Amino acid sequence: MIIREAVLGDEGAIMHLIHELAIYEKAPEEVFATAEDIRHSLFQEHPVAFCHVVEVDGQVVGIALWFLNYSTWLGKPGLYLEDLFVLEDHRGHGYGMALLKKLAAIAVDRGYDRFQWWVLDWNQPSIDLYKRMGAEPMDEWTTFRLSGDALRKFAQ
Amino acid sequence: MIIREAVLGDEGAIMHLIHELAIYEKAPEEVFATAEDIRHSLFQEHPVAFCHVVEVDGQVVGIALWFLNYSTWLGKPGLYLEDLFVLEDHRGHGYGMALLKKLAAIAVDRGYDRFQWWVLDWNQPSIDLYKRMGAEPMDEWTTFRLSGDALRKFAQ
Repeated sequence: MIIREAVLGDEGAIMHLIHELAIYEKAPEEVFATAEDIRHSLFQEHPVAFCHVVEVDGQVVGIALWFLNYSTWLGKPGLYLEDLFVLEDHRGHGYGMALLKKLAAIAVDRGYDRFQWWVLDWNQPSIDLYKRMGAEPMDEWTTFRLSGDALRKFAQ
Repeated sequence: MIIREAVLGDEGAIMHLIHELAIYEKAPEEVFATAEDIRHSLFQEHPVAFCHVVEVDGQVVGIALWFLNYSTWLGKPGLYLEDLFVLEDHRGHGYGMALLKKLAAIAVDRGYDRFQWWVLDWNQPSIDLYKRMGAEPMDEWTTFRLSGDALRKFAQ
């Protein structure tokens, strides 16, 4: 098993795992991205997102896709994990944990003080794991999203 | 009243408003950023964050500080509002709403489909406002944060 940065050519495998994650999250119809979108996002001159992959026998079996957020109180970026997923047949080997540790190490190396992500409230096994890792639930906060028609209407 | 992009030289005023926001959120001791940090973050060659300000009689009285997040399902960035704040003496004129509309317009112009932010659960007036705007609370999700000693320990 190796963990490495995603490279040009991985976009198809990454897109496959994004689809599998959406199925796991019971919302496959909400995926509109294409492999071309992922290629552009990750590998353009100034990428808007980053991805690390787990490779086993030449196959990408896990991904951690992340971007930089920003804390005004700290005055610096933090690392935000958007998607973490390991193919079902490859679970139980600690690959997800290895990806999390890799991202944590990147955050520490760069002097970021925060590593964040969110989790569905029904995903108790993950919540238990994250608490054991020392992560804190930001229980006092709720994210709001303005999108689609409501966004366009509000913007006028 | 004008709304404009923050420019070099605004960092002191922006830092002042960040401090005032932290006091409003009952956590002034959690602000470690300096005006120099803000200057670097907003005005370096590839900024990690962006800011729009409300200016009245030559004074910055409101800020919206934001960054780009990323949706794997959409395959493109979104706009994430980190901080929105208007000085107390200047409230009641719709400046906060004007800033929100400005950011929504930027999101629409660029083809982003999501404009997001989070709110403290006790801030009912803001929650009511966001719902009237058509924003949806992402109630099923909880953000986790790994930081400080726990982050460094986990990264090892």
